[in-house]
Amino acid sequence: MAIRLGPNQYGKAEVRMVTVRRSGPVHHLRDLTVSTALRGHLERTHLTGDNADVVATDTQKNTVYAFAKQEPVGEIEDFALRLGRHFTGEFDHITGARIRIEEHGWQRITVGDEPHDHSFHRSGDERRTTEVTFDGDRVRVLSGLTGLTVLKSTGSEFHGFPRDRYTTLAETDDRILATAVTARWRHRSSTGDWATSFGEIRRILLETFATKHSLSLQQTLYAMGEAVLLARDEIAEIRLSLPNKHHFPVDLSPFGLTNENEVFFAADRPYGLIEGTVLRDGEVAEVDIP
Amino acid sequence: MAIRLGPNQYGKAEVRMVTVRRSGPVHHLRDLTVSTALRGHLERTHLTGDNADVVATDTQKNTVYAFAKQEPVGEIEDFALRLGRHFTGEFDHITGARIRIEEHGWQRITVGDEPHDHSFHRSGDERRTTEVTFDGDRVRVLSGLTGLTVLKSTGSEFHGFPRDRYTTLAETDDRILATAVTARWRHRSSTGDWATSFGEIRRILLETFATKHSLSLQQTLYAMGEAVLLARDEIAEIRLSLPNKHHFPVDLSPFGLTNENEVFFAADRPYGLIEGTVLRDGEVAEVDIP
Amino acid sequence: MAIRLGPNQYGKAEVRMVTVRRSGPVHHLRDLTVSTALRGHLERTHLTGDNADVVATDTQKNTVYAFAKQEPVGEIEDFALRLGRHFTGEFDHITGARIRIEEHGWQRITVGDEPHDHSFHRSGDERRTTEVTFDGDRVRVLSGLTGLTVLKSTGSEFHGFPRDRYTTLAETDDRILATAVTARWRHRSSTGDWATSFGEIRRILLETFATKHSLSLQQTLYAMGEAVLLARDEIAEIRLSLPNKHHFPVDLSPFGLTNENEVFFAADRPYGLIEGTVLRDGEVAEVDIP
Amino acid sequence: MAIRLGPNQYGKAEVRMVTVRRSGPVHHLRDLTVSTALRGHLERTHLTGDNADVVATDTQKNTVYAFAKQEPVGEIEDFALRLGRHFTGEFDHITGARIRIEEHGWQRITVGDEPHDHSFHRSGDERRTTEVTFDGDRVRVLSGLTGLTVLKSTGSEFHGFPRDRYTTLAETDDRILATAVTARWRHRSSTGDWATSFGEIRRILLETFATKHSLSLQQTLYAMGEAVLLARDEIAEIRLSLPNKHHFPVDLSPFGLTNENEVFFAADRPYGLIEGTVLRDGEVAEVDIP
Repeated sequence: MAIRLGPNQYGKAEVRMVTVRRSGPVHHLRDLTVSTALRGHLERTHLTGDNADVVATDTQKNTVYAFAKQEPVGEIEDFALRLGRHFTGEFDHITGARIRIEEHGWQRITVGDEPHDHSFHRSGDERRTTEVTFDGDRVRVLSGLTGLTVLKSTGSEFHGFPRDRYTTLAETDDRILATAVTARWRHRSSTGDWATSFGEIRRILLETFATKHSLSLQQTLYAMGEAVLLARDEIAEIRLSLPNKHHFPVDLSPFGLTNENEVFFAADRPYGLIEGTVLRDGEVAEVDIP
Repeated sequence: MAIRLGPNQYGKAEVRMVTVRRSGPVHHLRDLTVSTALRGHLERTHLTGDNADVVATDTQKNTVYAFAKQEPVGEIEDFALRLGRHFTGEFDHITGARIRIEEHGWQRITVGDEPHDHSFHRSGDERRTTEVTFDGDRVRVLSGLTGLTVLKSTGSEFHGFPRDRYTTLAETDDRILATAVTARWRHRSSTGDWATSFGEIRRILLETFATKHSLSLQQTLYAMGEAVLLARDEIAEIRLSLPNKHHFPVDLSPFGLTNENEVFFAADRPYGLIEGTVLRDGEVAEVDIP
Repeated sequence: MAIRLGPNQYGKAEVRMVTVRRSGPVHHLRDLTVSTALRGHLERTHLTGDNADVVATDTQKNTVYAFAKQEPVGEIEDFALRLGRHFTGEFDHITGARIRIEEHGWQRITVGDEPHDHSFHRSGDERRTTEVTFDGDRVRVLSGLTGLTVLKSTGSEFHGFPRDRYTTLAETDDRILATAVTARWRHRSSTGDWATSFGEIRRILLETFATKHSLSLQQTLYAMGEAVLLARDEIAEIRLSLPNKHHFPVDLSPFGLTNENEVFFAADRPYGLIEGTVLRDGEVAEVDIP
Repeated sequence: MAIRLGPNQYGKAEVRMVTVRRSGPVHHLRDLTVSTALRGHLERTHLTGDNADVVATDTQKNTVYAFAKQEPVGEIEDFALRLGRHFTGEFDHITGARIRIEEHGWQRITVGDEPHDHSFHRSGDERRTTEVTFDGDRVRVLSGLTGLTVLKSTGSEFHGFPRDRYTTLAETDDRILATAVTARWRHRSSTGDWATSFGEIRRILLETFATKHSLSLQQTLYAMGEAVLLARDEIAEIRLSLPNKHHFPVDLSPFGLTNENEVFFAADRPYGLIEGTVLRDGEVAEVDIP
């Protein structure tokens, strides 16, 4: 039975790049992790080791750095679009590309109530993300965020679930709900005001998590996605991956104490994992979270 | 424009379970990390917070532990099949399930040239994996491994790649080739001798990496996949994800020394990333590596 | 030759505890990781397995949780003092204790320009730390922080270092200086206004990093420590551990481009590591960073 | 009150180096992570930024690579001795050095029952370690290992510990005992047959863990250390750090099942942490585990 090459791609992963733009004494900092992956007519290298079609991953890395110099990086979506357009336009046998970028935030250090010109501290774990995919003539732009850890100390219930012989979980009408949001949303167009769109969607996700009274994390997930789609016309669909970071009330009764939802054990593993897509009618769900 | 729920699933991730089976004084150890995810008619919880369809993730976890007691765990593929069959069979509105298991290896400690009855040491980072998916009537069994780090200190070249204005990489006819193999393969059937199949495929992957003279990591990837398919009839397709863990020869010339491929800097990031599927004619590629 | 037991301690490490204090509808969140270690007359358990002196690590964990209920946690230094006093006071054979606490920050989610009553997001990687040591009658209080990543994009030089046959580094009068600050300082007293002290010291560390023109990371380290001691009478000594997170300007000349300190490769490993203590005359350096 | 510089050191951390030695077609692989730290008269750089005494950390890194070419690396203790002797001998103002090396193991891939000439797979997480310290005329050699994860499924009890109002732990005469051994031992001399010594000590640690019936992890720790000192004259002291990796029997009684120490939950955090030194009479305990 004959054997053949199936779907494949290759590229350079996690190119760490920091850029500094100087507007006089005031510096602007960008901190990106860029991963490129190319697709196309790559049978030769796989089957024979002939690399005439293999744009070296080292070349891909160099291109990332050179492009950051040639023109301001701009929003990460724009930078990914430029890179993808280059790779698919420059090489005949490269017919597709997937560019992923994570942006790490930095804030200016405050000195005497003033933001410093060229000194910064890292904002935290949260990263803004993009994935731009070129497939023949089609260009698809995803934006997103990851590592946004949130918690509400009340306003969350969980009950009414089925009970079988393996069910021991007690029902609760007041629990901590905590998660680390990873979200990716697909734009309807490959042009846009990426910064405003991102800022508003992040705000909506946070506000909805905060204010939606939760009967399940699934309900919260849907509410977050729905709120984004209702407010932002430019978005076709959004996918959320929400680990349920369990906070268990510690049983203090052996010590003669009553724990009125005051003292919690924050567990590492296992954790619940709730994943779902919210989308507009007429759209086909495409977004996955790797 | 109306908004709706798209693809979704939920479950308990990374249930850490160790089991001990006693055959008289000789103990047998299994160390698994199990993740369950259920799919089905879950609109109610998402839209209204009515959880009547939500088999709690806590119940899923309990089921994993109880099943390990009720019957010997067996091969991880078998255990995943049992779990998935239970969840989709027990609850009408649960129409699909995805069970992932990683197995961590342990070896007996040697005492005076003899393997000890009940003392073990961890074998390392490598894990054997499975993913079993139930979708209506269809059952799909993937097996695999991850964290198998390999290196060959010669027998690898890389040249003949295209050079554009961003290309600086020198051609080489002798380099270190190193990668951490993640592989997943799809079985043609949902029954099989999983242990033998795994052992043989792991052996083939290692031997092919070792003996195939490499002109590119892509060529090595294809050779590894092809060798598996040629030798193992039970496999329909295999996907490999191979990070190119770069080992750069250190430039010792400033110190009056010549580095004849003896001293290397092992870089963390960025790294090349080569991904590809090898499959039989007539099969449709389905396997992805998350 | 006789063999004996030397220094030893045991305890429960990384007890993850979240507490919620309700002031009417407004909730206050604390997120701590507590590690306890006890010392004393522990020969029996080591030599014979007689555990009559071993306050179980499980008991230590329970005590952490119970104490958080019995009285508000307060500043982490106060909570560590309470725990250490309890363990050394309650058990005759426990003559010493070391309590370490890390506090993870959370901020209120903003909803319509108002901070939300009970919804929070994680502030990032930075943690406030304390280590309180009881040794017989002596109590020593350290405070600190870790994970404070800072970067200045100019205002840093490095030149004038000796050149031997292994030196290739170019001198520079303008480089990125970046580090992840870990600092621990020793208080002169075991009572104090811990919160104010911490806030001021963190501010001074940040401002000094930002404003001190740097000729070496060692000079910056000393300046940061000195500024703290000059401003804060309550501190006897401070130790800083500063990894030099290298940002290398990418050589863009092969692409016909000039990199005027605009595009940098942020390296993972290796990294410089600068460690030092700044202290008042008359004090003996005691603080180490594990 | 005057302020001064206290203890300090600086160096290059985590230099990743792989070396290949060719004996005809058979290659020998070494995989090291080297960290150097220098001490001495370093007031000038701290106080004024004058770097005339600062052997650049980049120079330190270059030296590591050059030394690996100039002479075979040998055992890691030998390589650390060579590096430390160089730094303290070459520069007048450098009066001390601390060289730490971790060695990562690789095994030959087996092809047709034969070990392959130049293809290897990583042995796992365990690393052999050394720390060599130069302080004026004194040289101190530590050897050790880390990441050796072991487990015994019986032969471990824990009872007889004191019960206070916070104690809930049940006594047990049969539990899983699991830990990840980190050990460091101090040699009485700065010359020795490092490879034999290491191999024997590792064997003794494993065999003692396996065969010593355990009434507490402290007892096991002491037995492991004592066995090393009894068998190996060249060792002055040994320190062990043993996290108690808890494996809790899952309560299966709600499901009508009896768990006879067969099914365990392997917890991540918190964990017990048992640390202790075993040494010969007449020796002063010096070894710590960072």
